[in-house]
Amino acid sequence: MENRLNHERLIASLEELGKIGVGKDGQRNRLALSDGDKAARDLLCKWIKEAGLDLKIDPIGNIFGVLSGTEDGDPVIAGSHIDTVPNAGMFDGCVGVLSALEALRTIAGKKLPHRRSLAVAAWTNEEGSRFLPGVLGSSVFVGDLPLEKALAARDFSGVTAGDELARIGYAGCDTLKASAYMEFHVEQGPFLDAQKLEIGVVTGITGLSRWDVTYKGEANHAGTTPMNLRHDPLVAASKLHLAMSAAAAEKNAVFTVGHVEVSPGAVNVVPGRTFFTIDLRSQDRTVLDELHVRCEAEIRRCAREEGVDVECIPTDHSDPVSFAPGMIEKVERFAKLRGLSNRRMGSGAGHDAQVFAPRVPTAMIFVPSIGGKSHCPEELSDMNLICQGAEILTDCLLELANE
Amino acid sequence: MENRLNHERLIASLEELGKIGVGKDGQRNRLALSDGDKAARDLLCKWIKEAGLDLKIDPIGNIFGVLSGTEDGDPVIAGSHIDTVPNAGMFDGCVGVLSALEALRTIAGKKLPHRRSLAVAAWTNEEGSRFLPGVLGSSVFVGDLPLEKALAARDFSGVTAGDELARIGYAGCDTLKASAYMEFHVEQGPFLDAQKLEIGVVTGITGLSRWDVTYKGEANHAGTTPMNLRHDPLVAASKLHLAMSAAAAEKNAVFTVGHVEVSPGAVNVVPGRTFFTIDLRSQDRTVLDELHVRCEAEIRRCAREEGVDVECIPTDHSDPVSFAPGMIEKVERFAKLRGLSNRRMGSGAGHDAQVFAPRVPTAMIFVPSIGGKSHCPEELSDMNLICQGAEILTDCLLELANE
Repeated sequence: MENRLNHERLIASLEELGKIGVGKDGQRNRLALSDGDKAARDLLCKWIKEAGLDLKIDPIGNIFGVLSGTEDGDPVIAGSHIDTVPNAGMFDGCVGVLSALEALRTIAGKKLPHRRSLAVAAWTNEEGSRFLPGVLGSSVFVGDLPLEKALAARDFSGVTAGDELARIGYAGCDTLKASAYMEFHVEQGPFLDAQKLEIGVVTGITGLSRWDVTYKGEANHAGTTPMNLRHDPLVAASKLHLAMSAAAAEKNAVFTVGHVEVSPGAVNVVPGRTFFTIDLRSQDRTVLDELHVRCEAEIRRCAREEGVDVECIPTDHSDPVSFAPGMIEKVERFAKLRGLSNRRMGSGAGHDAQVFAPRVPTAMIFVPSIGGKSHCPEELSDMNLICQGAEILTDCLLELANE
Repeated sequence: MENRLNHERLIASLEELGKIGVGKDGQRNRLALSDGDKAARDLLCKWIKEAGLDLKIDPIGNIFGVLSGTEDGDPVIAGSHIDTVPNAGMFDGCVGVLSALEALRTIAGKKLPHRRSLAVAAWTNEEGSRFLPGVLGSSVFVGDLPLEKALAARDFSGVTAGDELARIGYAGCDTLKASAYMEFHVEQGPFLDAQKLEIGVVTGITGLSRWDVTYKGEANHAGTTPMNLRHDPLVAASKLHLAMSAAAAEKNAVFTVGHVEVSPGAVNVVPGRTFFTIDLRSQDRTVLDELHVRCEAEIRRCAREEGVDVECIPTDHSDPVSFAPGMIEKVERFAKLRGLSNRRMGSGAGHDAQVFAPRVPTAMIFVPSIGGKSHCPEELSDMNLICQGAEILTDCLLELANE
């Protein structure tokens, strides 16, 4: 099959968006609804308008560029997100948004026929690095999360998503629905790269459980308080960390403590309080359920052992999801038609696609992440494979729009 | 023996100093050379001048109030510190400084005869919560630490002690030497309170080793990086924490991780870097030496197990010290003469006295810390016992000054 997209334009767009939110320290930080995120949104909106698409923004700040078809009805949406984790790479999320934009630029520019409407989408706060839960914008979009609750989400400094949305000028009032959803993404894991495969045909998405845990013990003098009389919340946290890491490893699941705060936080003071986050994932529903229950029990056990109080707040949960067989087949067929090596695989990362899968036909396309690295500045994917993934996305969108 | 001091004045001084550095959140924070520390220093200097003592400030900001004797020679110094840990109580350090001030107020006011000069001292940055090493001012005073090195010490935000000393106006140019040293302090541990004893006759001070450890691994996606392919520096830190806590407990030593920083610090990112502090103490030199070596080996072993790089900086070390038998006997004799129940004991906490002990006759007096609590807002000691301890301090100072 011949290429239809303007690969140079897609690569240039990726590189231009990648420069946004890079600070003086060289780190790329576009946490959701930050000034960096606003600058990226402004650029995307400019491109959407330049492509002749109809710009729409909904009340949670999701951005759409709609290309009307010859028939009425809800559009086929393709998208991802442009917010980032702290100190991020330039591919995660952006590849999906800009490939969908490139598809629509091309379909509009070449006037390729399509009966159903098409839309590119950039979903608000996919990462969940600033506001919890993640996939916030897409969850509000499909009705999983009430708008008011999403707007009331607070970051670590106590600022709400609603206030930040208003501040950066992205609290819109448009409404939209999806008739099908497609998301193209870098794998963010080592599977494809290790096997020298070009395309991942994604069959479903991992489930996850997250908690915010606070252990409260007794701050005391580090020199005079014997070990057996301590109530050290950080010892409890270390015990939990090792116990659940081992339990997850046994079940082929993953367990991460990504953020820790210790107070008062002095070298010579036994900690009085430790706050930390937990992220637990498995692609197997039974395993996730089992480890979820075990984790909550371990949180309490470690607290009891150290004689500390515990406050444990579940912040996120999603069951593993599977994509529709017909959608998986479509991605696989176009990958083959384009002569690209490919394999079916699950996604270890969560994506906006997971909230669409239970509702409308949904699929995802992966390209390899070199060395499996993601959520870090070393995140890298081959630009040629990104362009090939974007071609498959375009193939699928046109077929869906004309079915 | 009759009381000589003005107990009401001592208690009022303690309470007035205790109010300084209390923020809107109700927390007492007088970290060394902060604005709170400056306000406390200003108050102490005012009291020193009002008592008719000769105010002196040396180049590292140690504050002295000197009361000349009838003979030439270096003064007998009594003191402690007025800087605090974060969210501190009101007794640690201040009891020693203000009791020595009360002793000199009384000796000056009542013109009690003393051949040698006497001085009250407040040493800079005893806690080591802001600048490392702790006992910074007294170490410079005795010549253990070069002034330039002390002035170059940086806090967590990179500010130097020298710059802060200049900013708050406490970089003096006076010089002084001690002929003997006495320090009165709250125990900061549970020993005296648990045994319902009134006075601790301190025989020596615990030794300690401190390190700043940075583990550097590989930040990566929390959902897609299998447990066996991770290089998680926080897992390495948790392993070290539990291994050394157990090793210390076995040997009746203490091991504390008081401060932890994780980066990038997001719920969905495997940490790439973990920084933490270690504080290891024992009153037994052989045990401390053994655990010191073991700790450095464990730091490397845990790094190897997780495949992370390690940077390990020793930030402090002091051997356990013993006080002169004649000085210990003096404290014990006056405690008995005043009818106070007492016992000889080691100090689990470090004190400025530890840098004097190898050089000049040195002693310490303890009063109980209720519930053993210290370095926290709940820190509490009985005001009547503090006044009795101050009387013993005065007894010892007058005897030393007339020997």
